[in-house]
Amino acid sequence: MRPLEYSDGVLKLLDQTKLPLEQVTVECRTYEEVAASIRDMIVRGAPAIGVTAAYGIAIGALAISTNSKEEFTNQLEEICNTIRNTRPTAVNLFWAIERVYKSALDNMDKPIAEIKEKVLEEAIRMDNEDVENNWAIGQNGSKLIKDNFTILTHCNAGALATCDYGTALGVIRAAHEAGKNIDVYADETRPYLQGARLTAWELMQEGIPVTLICDNMAGHFMKSGKINCVIVGADRIALNGDTANKIGTYSVAVLAHENKIPFYVAAPLSTIDFSIESGESIPIEERKALEVTQIMGVQIAPHGVKVANPSFDVTPNRYITAIITEKGIVYPPFAENIKKLKL
Amino acid sequence: MRPLEYSDGVLKLLDQTKLPLEQVTVECRTYEEVAASIRDMIVRGAPAIGVTAAYGIAIGALAISTNSKEEFTNQLEEICNTIRNTRPTAVNLFWAIERVYKSALDNMDKPIAEIKEKVLEEAIRMDNEDVENNWAIGQNGSKLIKDNFTILTHCNAGALATCDYGTALGVIRAAHEAGKNIDVYADETRPYLQGARLTAWELMQEGIPVTLICDNMAGHFMKSGKINCVIVGADRIALNGDTANKIGTYSVAVLAHENKIPFYVAAPLSTIDFSIESGESIPIEERKALEVTQIMGVQIAPHGVKVANPSFDVTPNRYITAIITEKGIVYPPFAENIKKLKL
Repeated sequence: MRPLEYSDGVLKLLDQTKLPLEQVTVECRTYEEVAASIRDMIVRGAPAIGVTAAYGIAIGALAISTNSKEEFTNQLEEICNTIRNTRPTAVNLFWAIERVYKSALDNMDKPIAEIKEKVLEEAIRMDNEDVENNWAIGQNGSKLIKDNFTILTHCNAGALATCDYGTALGVIRAAHEAGKNIDVYADETRPYLQGARLTAWELMQEGIPVTLICDNMAGHFMKSGKINCVIVGADRIALNGDTANKIGTYSVAVLAHENKIPFYVAAPLSTIDFSIESGESIPIEERKALEVTQIMGVQIAPHGVKVANPSFDVTPNRYITAIITEKGIVYPPFAENIKKLKL
Repeated sequence: MRPLEYSDGVLKLLDQTKLPLEQVTVECRTYEEVAASIRDMIVRGAPAIGVTAAYGIAIGALAISTNSKEEFTNQLEEICNTIRNTRPTAVNLFWAIERVYKSALDNMDKPIAEIKEKVLEEAIRMDNEDVENNWAIGQNGSKLIKDNFTILTHCNAGALATCDYGTALGVIRAAHEAGKNIDVYADETRPYLQGARLTAWELMQEGIPVTLICDNMAGHFMKSGKINCVIVGADRIALNGDTANKIGTYSVAVLAHENKIPFYVAAPLSTIDFSIESGESIPIEERKALEVTQIMGVQIAPHGVKVANPSFDVTPNRYITAIITEKGIVYPPFAENIKKLKL
């Protein structure tokens, strides 16, 4: 299940605003269309955003028409800036832009046509790596999942949030593929309903048992002893392990902690921001009120009501049992052990 | 703002399934219609359910056509049973039925026409008492609210959940009327959206500042230092203070506790179940999947997805700072201090 597919200058995105009731593909032929797709959440999920950005830059680079390397570099920077300004929280976006831009800089001695090729190659490489990384995350994390476990997840950190296989859902997939009898509780994840629309659908497609609940029910089921562990994805992880993820993750983590349930974060190294010490430096995107006051275009609140709509929150490291990466499982002390991953 | 109004054999209910976009009044002329209105949540909120049930029995009693007191009693019991079987969690329902039924039994020596009158009088008395109690709860609770407080509330424990003024929102109203500068954060309260549809609307009508948030954002705002205290209503309080309330209340309480924010329950004595020692004995209503998978008739999840939809949860007493009643504020140890209220 791939939410993005590049071929011949066109990036095809599965429109995640329409799932699960409609399966519509959006075709991006310009970098501006790619940027808009990220901003409007046609594609979402930190790893998927990263690779989409990389393809966006490649599409933009391929369309640059100049013989001057200076002009080419200027235009490439312009493209990178446009894509950089789409969403502020997921660090994979900035990581991907930097990596693709560097692949151009590293090849500046070559002809422009070749530089363009290198940029596209880098995007394709990142796409492939993401799938490999997710598979490795799944294998590593699957060890933590025992037979007959019921796993709670929040938002969608599935194939739909990556290039394939998923991070949190990658672990769940791997456990399922290993023949373990597992059950998943999916938080619906307001306001955007990634849990109800995407996670429930993705797991049903795979034949993995899933029960949909409202976000405010998770605590009740943890207290009732229904949940054996929690696995979520991440949008940005600080050096000390503090983790920004979809709004509501912090609450789930506190409730898991209170009920002595392991709380795991599954994410590739590209989600770690090695430049920040703690989660306090992570910018939290505030999205528009309409996402809260309307659901699928239907008004559910009084007109004109004041709304707050932070799209992410930060879970302090003390609530996190372990971080599952493609390089292995990282346990506390995170401040010490995350640094080792960079070596 | 009254959600129910009895006059001349007709109980008029403000249809709370339609608010805030439509203000529709439903007229109940039979006890069966009253029972259906409770079951379908046209009226909701523990105190409002109690008084609605009382009026339902009165309407049913007035329509009994017999000269035999035995037959009258049998039919009255039948009416009580029908109304008893509408919803299981809010204890005010059973308290109200018992009280109205007793008013009939206590007057069995009188002519049937007079018994009917006594039943109706009791219902009207309970209606008036509820408003007085809420006002007293407001006055008592207002002392806990300081100037410039931001108060988080979950679900709707407002005028709409009672006969007027509200319990949790009664405290907020009283603080506002006392001239305190307050701000309210209202959890939208999935699946039924009482916060988005009812609390936000009710507070906007009163000119009390309100910010609507999704349930999963409450923890984030508590951690960010935005919230000074939490006030919620209750559907049933056990002798030890354990409190059943709208699903999600437990999570809010744990998050308040973790962030050292006072967590108050505002409820009349009629919400205390003096017959149960702890919250473990409180039955939790499971409602239909459709409330989760559809919002205002719009499908938001894959067709056929498995759903859990518990309508309430139980907050253990250790997370509750105080219970605000019409007789005063009750502090821990609740097991000791709640018993004193009955004297």
